[in-house]
Amino acid sequence: MSSSSLLQTSISSSSSAFFANHNLTFNSRARSVSLPAKHVGICKCVATPQAEKTEYKTQVSRNANIAKLQAGYLFPEVARRRAAHLKKYPDAQVISLGIGDTTEPIPEVITSVMAKRAHALSTLEGYSGYGPEQGEKPLRAAIASAFYDNLGIEEDDIFVSDGAKCDISRLQVVFGSNVTIAVQDPSYPAYVDSSVIMGQTGQYQKDVEKFGNIEYMRCTPENGFFPDLHTVSRTDIIFFCSPNNPTGSAATREQLTQLVQFAKDNGSIIVYDSAYALYMSDDNPRSIFEIPGAKEVALETSSFSKYAGFTGVRLGWTVVPKQLLFSDGFPVAKDFNRIVSTCFNGASNISQAGGLACLSPEGLKAMREVIGFYKENTEIIVETFESLGFKVYGGKNAPYVWVHFPGRSSWDVFSEILEKTHVVTTPGSGFGFGGEGFVRVSAFGHRSNVLEACKRFKQLYK
Amino acid sequence: MSSSSLLQTSISSSSSAFFANHNLTFNSRARSVSLPAKHVGICKCVATPQAEKTEYKTQVSRNANIAKLQAGYLFPEVARRRAAHLKKYPDAQVISLGIGDTTEPIPEVITSVMAKRAHALSTLEGYSGYGPEQGEKPLRAAIASAFYDNLGIEEDDIFVSDGAKCDISRLQVVFGSNVTIAVQDPSYPAYVDSSVIMGQTGQYQKDVEKFGNIEYMRCTPENGFFPDLHTVSRTDIIFFCSPNNPTGSAATREQLTQLVQFAKDNGSIIVYDSAYALYMSDDNPRSIFEIPGAKEVALETSSFSKYAGFTGVRLGWTVVPKQLLFSDGFPVAKDFNRIVSTCFNGASNISQAGGLACLSPEGLKAMREVIGFYKENTEIIVETFESLGFKVYGGKNAPYVWVHFPGRSSWDVFSEILEKTHVVTTPGSGFGFGGEGFVRVSAFGHRSNVLEACKRFKQLYK
Repeated sequence: MSSSSLLQTSISSSSSAFFANHNLTFNSRARSVSLPAKHVGICKCVATPQAEKTEYKTQVSRNANIAKLQAGYLFPEVARRRAAHLKKYPDAQVISLGIGDTTEPIPEVITSVMAKRAHALSTLEGYSGYGPEQGEKPLRAAIASAFYDNLGIEEDDIFVSDGAKCDISRLQVVFGSNVTIAVQDPSYPAYVDSSVIMGQTGQYQKDVEKFGNIEYMRCTPENGFFPDLHTVSRTDIIFFCSPNNPTGSAATREQLTQLVQFAKDNGSIIVYDSAYALYMSDDNPRSIFEIPGAKEVALETSSFSKYAGFTGVRLGWTVVPKQLLFSDGFPVAKDFNRIVSTCFNGASNISQAGGLACLSPEGLKAMREVIGFYKENTEIIVETFESLGFKVYGGKNAPYVWVHFPGRSSWDVFSEILEKTHVVTTPGSGFGFGGEGFVRVSAFGHRSNVLEACKRFKQLYK
Repeated sequence: MSSSSLLQTSISSSSSAFFANHNLTFNSRARSVSLPAKHVGICKCVATPQAEKTEYKTQVSRNANIAKLQAGYLFPEVARRRAAHLKKYPDAQVISLGIGDTTEPIPEVITSVMAKRAHALSTLEGYSGYGPEQGEKPLRAAIASAFYDNLGIEEDDIFVSDGAKCDISRLQVVFGSNVTIAVQDPSYPAYVDSSVIMGQTGQYQKDVEKFGNIEYMRCTPENGFFPDLHTVSRTDIIFFCSPNNPTGSAATREQLTQLVQFAKDNGSIIVYDSAYALYMSDDNPRSIFEIPGAKEVALETSSFSKYAGFTGVRLGWTVVPKQLLFSDGFPVAKDFNRIVSTCFNGASNISQAGGLACLSPEGLKAMREVIGFYKENTEIIVETFESLGFKVYGGKNAPYVWVHFPGRSSWDVFSEILEKTHVVTTPGSGFGFGGEGFVRVSAFGHRSNVLEACKRFKQLYK
């Protein structure tokens, strides 16, 4: 809309006696103002106000922890390179199998409920303002029932959120700067980046491509992408994602039992990321809470993003069992609740209505079909790279295919694929040093694009 | 939905070859599992796994900064007391003029666009996944144009968010633990609480009811609710809310010019909260950027919550001008962008569609009407308390009425009003020591409730 319409409109005083002095133009007076700047007594420095083109610097120091971060967050960086490529080749038919963004429409059984909720907000009966920061009760109950039934997880252990990535940062705020963390290497970059931001780490060490004071748990084809816990040092927090992003591997029940025992023996807290659990084909746990005793050492974060195409709608959840206690016996859930209440105001009520629709019998059926579609994409990608003689991992239990290019730099391969096929992937090294030599190919895409991308891969690597 | 339906459903393998091994039940196997717990070599402590009823504690220390917080976040605490009151008087007709929650339906011109966007997500053309973390381009442009036209604020200075409260926390993450802050006293509690959480403060000092290392800028009837800057010590960050929550007072152009000069002389950054700007009746600035030079020392956060009834829909924005620099010359906007990208994934696309509808000519007109309605409520509340002989502040430029009960404890008055009239208010001292002796009465309510509440106030205080 044009701002001039706004600036020129003022409320007619006839509409309400209270509007008489109420002019809703925002800045109609700003242009003519030139009050003399008053000098205030106790100011410690004297800066002469100057034209805004002269560079004025505040005296606020930049947060040294943020300065430690090496580059932009991975996915915006991938998007940046994609944009640069499009500029270079404006006519190229670029296909994105990069950032793991869902592409298929959300089933109508879900969107119709969101639309209904939106309409209801225009009615007296259907209007709702602030909801509980922890999420609406029926949704919390439905999540507990759908995903954690028989696991001893209750409705009030569930905290509904605007997504797992956001919850990871809120969890880091709960933990503070004095904890140590371990991550799978490679892993979803939000764990490491949020840890750096909170000041839990040392500086980035260029020679080893690692941050100081983070325990990187190497996950390689050789160890079946499950870390050798005998070589892992104790940390306060262990981030663990299964099925894994980016490797696509899923931990078995026996491996997760080992992990829980490891945490218990060390007094650590596992932050378990199960955002891809519904992509599991194998007979592995979908939740860490399937492992006996996990409630005392683990919390779990998950999301509707990759199940229902909610990457833009924004809805996730975190489970913090009451049994999970800090060393002084204080429940982690109580502090998480305080942070959620203070730093967040709940997920959008319309998104929450969508989440509840996802968990209805029809919604679940519809979600399964979308997930099934992406799993078919995964198979197509796996078969393509295998037919070209590549060693391929993942895919079976996750929407990510982890392709090995031994001895090569991930970013080089990323650039080669982009330059020669106009397909965007994600360089494995963006997920940590352990991802070097790999490229992640996402299975989120229209079928025609996936088939076309695979055709181009075959031309490039035949 | 019943979990058993989920557990019993598996995908028919006929629907897709890839579904053959794909069983989407989540935890059907969890109940029969009892694998022996493996003991892992390097564990540093040996804890015998026991039944979960025995209290196991991790060895992770509780974040000492969070432990500094004195009580629950104010508004959940008010909600808790309201719930307790309802339990005590199950038949009472409780009226809430407490937490500042909007009550009037959202105009259809706005919800119909959100519903349309929701429906479109079920179509190939209308589907969208991850959007830019900073917000959709048309919305950023519309905000820049509607609120900051002619002020030199550009589209890419606008960061769309899920609300001002959430942005305040993200800003605190940007600033980190080594900054000092100043707040108006009284003020919206999220500033102080988020500062405590980030470790910027000392302990709570019970005798003075303040946290160490925070500069409390006293705002009283005597100074017209604008701090005497001659007595204010330099801090890195100055939180400043105008029109103010809770006092309802708005700073004049001259006062804000003083504030900007004060920040410039001290090299401070002003975090300006303008969430109530559209409630302004007087001829005061709606944005800090109306003050010349403010872009070098200020950022501004605002919200659709109180304009369009979006408290549950969740949509806000923060303006970080490119001209705002840390002491080393690094742009604050770049670090905020990094935090937004790493800790957030953008506001819901449906909410953003609603925001854009708010800024259409019809949307603006509809918003003005809702705001006008609440302003009428404000007048009714002001007149009521004035007729009872109370000194009343605020109201004219904000949806909050700040009622003085000299010499009395705010929580006592809160309890008295709740007990005797079944009306929920907010105790002034919940906003800081400077709010002691005041009660904030919110003008958000159905007209009938506001009238009924005022009738009861008249009975109580006649």
